[in-house]
This record gives sequence, C-alpha cells and structure tokens, in this order.
Amino acid sequence: MSPAPSTPAYRRLSVEERRAQLLDAALSLFAQRVPEEVSLDDVAEAAGVSRPLVYRYFPGGKQQLYEAALRSAAEELRHCLDEPHEGPPLSRLARVLDRYLAFVDQHATGFTALLRGGSVVETSRTTAIVDGVRRSAAEQILGHLQVTDPGPRLRMTVRMWITAVEAASLIWLDEGRQPPAEELRDWLVEQFMAVMGVTAARDAQTAALMRRVRAFEDG
Amino acid sequence: MSPAPSTPAYRRLSVEERRAQLLDAALSLFAQRVPEEVSLDDVAEAAGVSRPLVYRYFPGGKQQLYEAALRSAAEELRHCLDEPHEGPPLSRLARVLDRYLAFVDQHATGFTALLRGGSVVETSRTTAIVDGVRRSAAEQILGHLQVTDPGPRLRMTVRMWITAVEAASLIWLDEGRQPPAEELRDWLVEQFMAVMGVTAARDAQTAALMRRVRAFEDG
Repeated sequence: MSPAPSTPAYRRLSVEERRAQLLDAALSLFAQRVPEEVSLDDVAEAAGVSRPLVYRYFPGGKQQLYEAALRSAAEELRHCLDEPHEGPPLSRLARVLDRYLAFVDQHATGFTALLRGGSVVETSRTTAIVDGVRRSAAEQILGHLQVTDPGPRLRMTVRMWITAVEAASLIWLDEGRQPPAEELRDWLVEQFMAVMGVTAARDAQTAALMRRVRAFEDG
Repeated sequence: MSPAPSTPAYRRLSVEERRAQLLDAALSLFAQRVPEEVSLDDVAEAAGVSRPLVYRYFPGGKQQLYEAALRSAAEELRHCLDEPHEGPPLSRLARVLDRYLAFVDQHATGFTALLRGGSVVETSRTTAIVDGVRRSAAEQILGHLQVTDPGPRLRMTVRMWITAVEAASLIWLDEGRQPPAEELRDWLVEQFMAVMGVTAARDAQTAALMRRVRAFEDG
C-alpha cells in the first residue's frame, strides 16, 4: 500500500471524514462566536470547501449544522465528565471540574451564547441536548456517591449545585476568568460539601452518604 | 356625577384600561400554558373582545403581547422581592422567598416554559427581561446586607445562589410542589448561609458580612 498523500487538500475524504471535518470547522466557529455571527460561508471557508458542499452534507443549513455541532460538543463534554470510580470522591469531583472548566474556557463564546438563551438557533431540540448533559452530570455524581435510588432532597441538591456551577462558569468567563480555575474548582467542591451538609440535616439518605464521603476523605 | 355602570361589559374602557385588561388576560394565559398553546383568539376570548381589537393594541401580535406580559410579570416579581430593611436579615430573606414561591406557584407553566428556554417566543429581549429580574434580586440581597461595593467572590456567591433558587423552583414544580413551600424556603435560607460561609473562608468582605448577619440573628 502506498502512503496517503501528505497534503490534506488533495486527499479525497470519505463521506464520514468529510462530515467530521465540516463539523469540526462548525464547532470551532460556534465555540468562539455567537451563532448569529456564523454563516455557512464561514464554515465552508474554515473547512476549505465550497458552500454547496456544506449544503450537500447539511441540507438544513445553519440550524442543522448548529444542532450537529452542539450534539458533538455535548458528547465531548459528557466525555469530560467521565471519571474512574477510584480514589477519594472529592478528588474525583475536583478532576472532573478541572476538565469542565477547561472545556468552558475553550468553548467560551459558544458556551455563553448557548446557556444565556434567546439565540435564534435555540429550539426545544437544543434545550433538550443541554438538559441531557445536565442529567448525565447528575447521574455521574450520584454514581460516584454509589447512590442507586436517590430521594427527592438529594436529587434536588445535586441538580441545584450543577446549575450553580453553570452559573459560576458564565460569571467566571464574564469576569475575565477570575478567580483562577484552580481556586474556582476548590471553591465549587467546598460549596458542594456545604450544600450537601445542609441537606444532610434534613434527609437521612444524604446524611449517611456524607458520613461515607467524609470517612473516605479522612481515612 | 353619575356612578359608573356596574356591568363591566357595557363600560367603555379608556385606552390605558383596555390595554391593562388585555395584558391581564394574556398574562394569566401565558402563566398557565406554554406560549405555543396560546393564540391571539384565546386572548381575545379571555378578555371578551374581538381579535382585531387585540391587534389594534398589539400590532406585533403574539410576540409583542408575550413580551408585554413578560414585562408585566417581571414587574410583579420585582415587587415580590421588595422587602423593608427592618428586622433580622434572614427573616427578611425568608419572607421574600415565601412571596417568590407563591409567585412561582401561580405562574407555574409560564414560569417553567420561560426558564426552560427553547420556546419560539424567546428572544434576546425576553432573555434581557429575565436577566434584569436576576440582577435586581442580587442587588436587593446585597442592599439588605448593606454592601455597597461587593467584591467578585461575594457577587458570584449571591448570583450562584439565585440561580440555584431558580433551579430549585423548577424542580419543585416538576415534583408536584414537594417539599412543602415552607420547608423549601427554610432549606434555601440554610443553603444561602452555607455557601456564604464557604465564601467567607476565602474572602474577607464576606467574612465580615457573615459576622454581622450572625450577630444580628443571635442578638
């Protein structure tokens, strides 16, 4: 077999490869600009292809491309949230937050536009994609805490904390990424423990859980 | 002067009164149904007027009516957040939360649709209206705490807590208004103290503030 040509421009891409390439180009544009400021021409130019080719792959135009890029970003974010079930739970949470904040940092403008809402490309479908990530984040946390049947107070606490983390990342971007990511990460872990502690005083399941987490951290 | 006729249907309304009546009708429809399920005919019927009359007052149709209703709901919510600067700060917070949860309860469907996002009537204008209420809520809290120049950590903590309260109210509605409003209110106040306590360990301004709040509560 002869080696693949080294100049990408001359290589013929498979349908799958071409689709992935267009998505990559769209994703990096949507990550750094508000959707209103990304045109199909921009995507075509960034991918080094013609506008009709973009339409051939995404006949629904910008809306379809945006949703596909969002789905792909959601997949990437979900991947960030994956963490082995090993070691002290709070260190795992800290590592996940490190990766989450790096993701937020890289996708700043798109992330902000998406979560701020009111964008022309926002639909019940895009909202559902974002909600899916929030749901997996909650499941991840409960999984790490080895809770299989979370009661309403525990679930509400975890979901509230996740929303607070989202709010924190938007504010963090607004404030020129202050405080530094490591400080924000530690602060968010402390807030998690604080709100779980408050719920523990009202909910036996959360109380038992907190005893386990603290024993792990101290042991 | 002769008394005004007592049957409202026969009374001729002023332009202002008519507008207010149409807005009231729209507001109660948008509070209880998702915007997709409210038509101008519904508003006309609820107000007991013709569809052309609705258009005369709101030539922009449903979108304009929705935004006007939202503005009026935002005004009402802002009014709920008003609380005299008297008595222990945490009791004030509890009273504001009581009124907030009553508002959420009354505007359940509309509130949920609005904050969930992805609705066809959502625009950067509707987002700005909601953000305006969030901003006043933060200012109210800092005002009650007698902070005139909040640092970034204190501001972030207050804004995160406000977002968490919003998340809690959406979950609360989803879960059939469980836990009971009084329990949720106390729990949210406790969370406020817990996250402020965490920030106090990292921020001198918040630490001083918390000492004042605790002294007030204990005194």
